[in-house]
Amino acid sequence: MHIDVLTLFPEMISGAFNSSIIKKAHEKEKFSYNLVNFREYADNKHQKVDDYPYGGGAGMVLTPQPVFDAVEAVTKEKALNPRIILMCPQGEPYNQKKAEELAKEDHLVFICGHYEGYDERIREHLVTDEISIGDFVLTGGELGAMVVVDSVVRLLPDVLGNEESAPEDSFSTGLLEHPHYTRPSDFRGMKVPEVLLSGHHANIVGWRKIESLKRTYERRKDLLDLQTLSDEDQKILNEFKNKNI
Amino acid sequence: MHIDVLTLFPEMISGAFNSSIIKKAHEKEKFSYNLVNFREYADNKHQKVDDYPYGGGAGMVLTPQPVFDAVEAVTKEKALNPRIILMCPQGEPYNQKKAEELAKEDHLVFICGHYEGYDERIREHLVTDEISIGDFVLTGGELGAMVVVDSVVRLLPDVLGNEESAPEDSFSTGLLEHPHYTRPSDFRGMKVPEVLLSGHHANIVGWRKIESLKRTYERRKDLLDLQTLSDEDQKILNEFKNKNI
Repeated sequence: MHIDVLTLFPEMISGAFNSSIIKKAHEKEKFSYNLVNFREYADNKHQKVDDYPYGGGAGMVLTPQPVFDAVEAVTKEKALNPRIILMCPQGEPYNQKKAEELAKEDHLVFICGHYEGYDERIREHLVTDEISIGDFVLTGGELGAMVVVDSVVRLLPDVLGNEESAPEDSFSTGLLEHPHYTRPSDFRGMKVPEVLLSGHHANIVGWRKIESLKRTYERRKDLLDLQTLSDEDQKILNEFKNKNI
Repeated sequence: MHIDVLTLFPEMISGAFNSSIIKKAHEKEKFSYNLVNFREYADNKHQKVDDYPYGGGAGMVLTPQPVFDAVEAVTKEKALNPRIILMCPQGEPYNQKKAEELAKEDHLVFICGHYEGYDERIREHLVTDEISIGDFVLTGGELGAMVVVDSVVRLLPDVLGNEESAPEDSFSTGLLEHPHYTRPSDFRGMKVPEVLLSGHHANIVGWRKIESLKRTYERRKDLLDLQTLSDEDQKILNEFKNKNI
């Protein structure tokens, strides 16, 4: 996979590419990337990339020319079928399923605006995807793009070791994860539940199942609505409901 | 406001603190921050911060001791009432309302795990908030913490200028923003809608309203369900519905 990030602030995200699992994946050549400052593609003397909106109003709008030219420059020499992704609040809400879809691609190009709006012609005639990471306002698309990159790269083949892959459970089962405990068994008087110290495997599995259902019920009922639960899980869930009503 | 970020990978996010609006806000002393590597608080010889889970299973779990000690160190000398925020997939889904709530605080402390799970005693006895930025799996809490920091800092008094504040419209009206256009009026044959070039203010306002409703209807019906629309807006919306059914 090759990733291009078009941004006016490459230094905002270069550190995230140079840390931890993403850094290791890059060193092992599981993917390549390029941070492209699209200001360099502006065809005017002052390298201006934004202008006032037609029709008036506050804020600036990114002009189409530097963005079109930068995207064409990074895609023209590759025989790949690129996904051109615009990071914006109006985009499709991002989730794990979309991460899995993007992880199968050969070439991702991210366009990051920075507090400006995008000229609509970029949306209509250039991009293949518009993504929003959530219903909150950020100063730019850079952190959103990095969130998508991070969640996609960790899904590429041979990127994660065994120790690193466990947290995925949360979204692969559709339920929130059960609580975890590690040493010491008594920390300042706060103790680990007996069952986890018992060595009784079946009881531990049962306890974790109940805690996972309980946590999902208490915090994210919306996730339960998306599930087909087993009869046993449904029975456990009904017990919580009876207690909580 | 003072912000502490507890992380094993400070280099992953230091660039985001040193860019753009966040950098400017820091230089103007609108907030202060500290990146704290909580490995330095581990009280064992090898500075180990994680261990195997009780009860078995894949993955590692952050031990309580370094996290408790690091949080106590960064909060003890401040007379402030800190919010201790755990970034995790099981947390409360983050949104603009939560950003506005956190922007009123004096001291935010973020705890970022990194592919490990958290010992449950951290959740139960140390933190005041658990936040998830979305239903996707990241390699760590760092990017999530940075997303929260970015969305909060831009809300602090006198951080944003006029030009930078416009995109907020998207979530303050509860609808997605209307399309934007800027120069040139004809880019490679792609033209700006006539109405925006007309100079007719009332028509422009009307066009933007319709486009905003239309975009929200097409992309995010869930946002419309949360709205109380005016009779006029409801009428416009009904017209889309009749066309689209």
